[in-house]
Amino acid sequence: LPDALIIALDAMGGDDAPGVVVEGAALARVRHPEVKYSFYGDEAVLKPMLAQHAALNAVSNIVHTDNVISPDMKAGQALRQGRTSSMGMAVTAVKGGEASAAVSGGNTGALMALSKFILRTMPGIDRPALVALLPTIRGESAMLDLGANVECSAENLVQFAVMGAAYTRLALGLSRPKVGLLNIGSEDLKGHDTIRLAAEQLRHADLPYEFIGFVEGDDIGEGTADVVVSDGFTGNIALKTMEGTAVLIMALLRKAFGNSLLSKLGYILAKGGLQSLRNHMDPNTHNGGMMLGLNGLVIKSHGGANSSGFASAIDVAIELANGNLQERIAVDLAAVEQAAEAATKETAAE
Amino acid sequence: LPDALIIALDAMGGDDAPGVVVEGAALARVRHPEVKYSFYGDEAVLKPMLAQHAALNAVSNIVHTDNVISPDMKAGQALRQGRTSSMGMAVTAVKGGEASAAVSGGNTGALMALSKFILRTMPGIDRPALVALLPTIRGESAMLDLGANVECSAENLVQFAVMGAAYTRLALGLSRPKVGLLNIGSEDLKGHDTIRLAAEQLRHADLPYEFIGFVEGDDIGEGTADVVVSDGFTGNIALKTMEGTAVLIMALLRKAFGNSLLSKLGYILAKGGLQSLRNHMDPNTHNGGMMLGLNGLVIKSHGGANSSGFASAIDVAIELANGNLQERIAVDLAAVEQAAEAATKETAAE
Repeated sequence: LPDALIIALDAMGGDDAPGVVVEGAALARVRHPEVKYSFYGDEAVLKPMLAQHAALNAVSNIVHTDNVISPDMKAGQALRQGRTSSMGMAVTAVKGGEASAAVSGGNTGALMALSKFILRTMPGIDRPALVALLPTIRGESAMLDLGANVECSAENLVQFAVMGAAYTRLALGLSRPKVGLLNIGSEDLKGHDTIRLAAEQLRHADLPYEFIGFVEGDDIGEGTADVVVSDGFTGNIALKTMEGTAVLIMALLRKAFGNSLLSKLGYILAKGGLQSLRNHMDPNTHNGGMMLGLNGLVIKSHGGANSSGFASAIDVAIELANGNLQERIAVDLAAVEQAAEAATKETAAE
Repeated sequence: LPDALIIALDAMGGDDAPGVVVEGAALARVRHPEVKYSFYGDEAVLKPMLAQHAALNAVSNIVHTDNVISPDMKAGQALRQGRTSSMGMAVTAVKGGEASAAVSGGNTGALMALSKFILRTMPGIDRPALVALLPTIRGESAMLDLGANVECSAENLVQFAVMGAAYTRLALGLSRPKVGLLNIGSEDLKGHDTIRLAAEQLRHADLPYEFIGFVEGDDIGEGTADVVVSDGFTGNIALKTMEGTAVLIMALLRKAFGNSLLSKLGYILAKGGLQSLRNHMDPNTHNGGMMLGLNGLVIKSHGGANSSGFASAIDVAIELANGNLQERIAVDLAAVEQAAEAATKETAAE
């Protein structure tokens, strides 16, 4: 039997930490009774909180630290001062093998910087990428990079595709995810040279995913691809444009419903339906973004997550750790490189 | 008194042409009784249609052509075969001064290619840009470039900003539009070098608009800027992501309302409100996209526009023609160049 999985928790990160972290772990424990938890943070605060959750307490330990990364701390400062923080220590636990994954709801920039610094990029990956799950008409899709890399080479994009595909196989349980490159037209001649070159390389590889070619901005919400790959500049703008459009439509909806007495009555009656829509668009249910391509798993929970949101970030951590995400990426990367070499030889032989 | 404005209409362009074109012009005529219309297309079809609109007929003439650009014709083919088409002839009328602006609901790629070829880029503008009006929480904003230029220099972005600002002053009636550069962070250090350089140049100029610096993807729906400037790759992806998100939310909404009998009843009562939302997001009310920076005005109407959508594209054409858009752009461009020169001299003198 393998050792029990241990998840390192940054107990002090996030708007409502440490309460939400402890309650989130209590929820996750019910779903994963075999997993153990290490809480990094203020022991004097955490101890009485954990005492209220006997079952969780039995599978948890606390590692004390006074040092906390503030929400507005710059990445550089976090690197200088943050390695003994609750966040830094949780990530270091993954590095040292004391934990299989770390989960934090704290300062995103600091988490990315600390994770990159402490864990380093895995062999074969030039640059790590930020990935997240987004709601679509068909369910959920993963999109990456969401802002870690402003400019990307074709090789970077190919690596993102491989990492994203491995991620959705575990996080979404897909056996053969569809991978698309974000572009401005589905015709082969559109877009940057970089994207066309990446498409060429992805087409050759025989991998446990399907490369469906180029997808456009409206394909994101449509769910045409399970993995949407782009450079970090475009990906970040697409992600934030989605968020802004959702806010816009909700505002218009509120206004529209206020137009007449009948509409208002309808709104009251339809409240349940609207609530379910809000839940679907709620970042809490689409939690568990992370930086792919490091020597270890660090999952970012939404800073404003409630306990169920934090629990779903823990779920993702457990699924990825159990599924050996890192190993899958390494295997798939090797296959892509092999296919590229074979294609080069073939061209040379012609 | 100046001569009456003449608008050239591609009578055969768009899904429901020529019916929608004639009916759209009839609607526009009521709002602008002083304007005249030239219909380019099949006279045998157009004549009886116009006869049914006596008031419009009195201010219209028909220029016959059999040649029509098909919706799926490639830009290259349109350039070879399309100059005697209804679309090509309408654009040529602007070039020759027989019309003050052209409006077409036909094939976008063909219209852009023909407009660029026939009208050429105006002095001081290196590359024309696609602009459109988008719904926001505050009303409407213009965004450009939406796909005409995949890669852009800082100078291109500055020119887009000047053109977009002049456009919103006329199309939205703003006296001092706010101009923002689309970026992945509002801090000065984020994003590409190109964008930072463009920001530097825009900051120096003293113009009839306010440069508010960088805006992010969620600022588009928020309406933070009246003019959102980006390269064509990013702009196109942001635009289509907005469209896709709107479709996604509408689909989720339908599903949400079907969840319970109470929700369904609410939906029926709230239908008026939802209809008003749909109208707000409807491309027909946000019609009148165009290519800015050419020696003449060509307005693109949505291919699926109804008569009121086509009429609003004509409205935009009339507003821009009356406001001398081209002249305003030329004046503002000169001011930007002067400011840049002054800044260079100042730096040299230091």
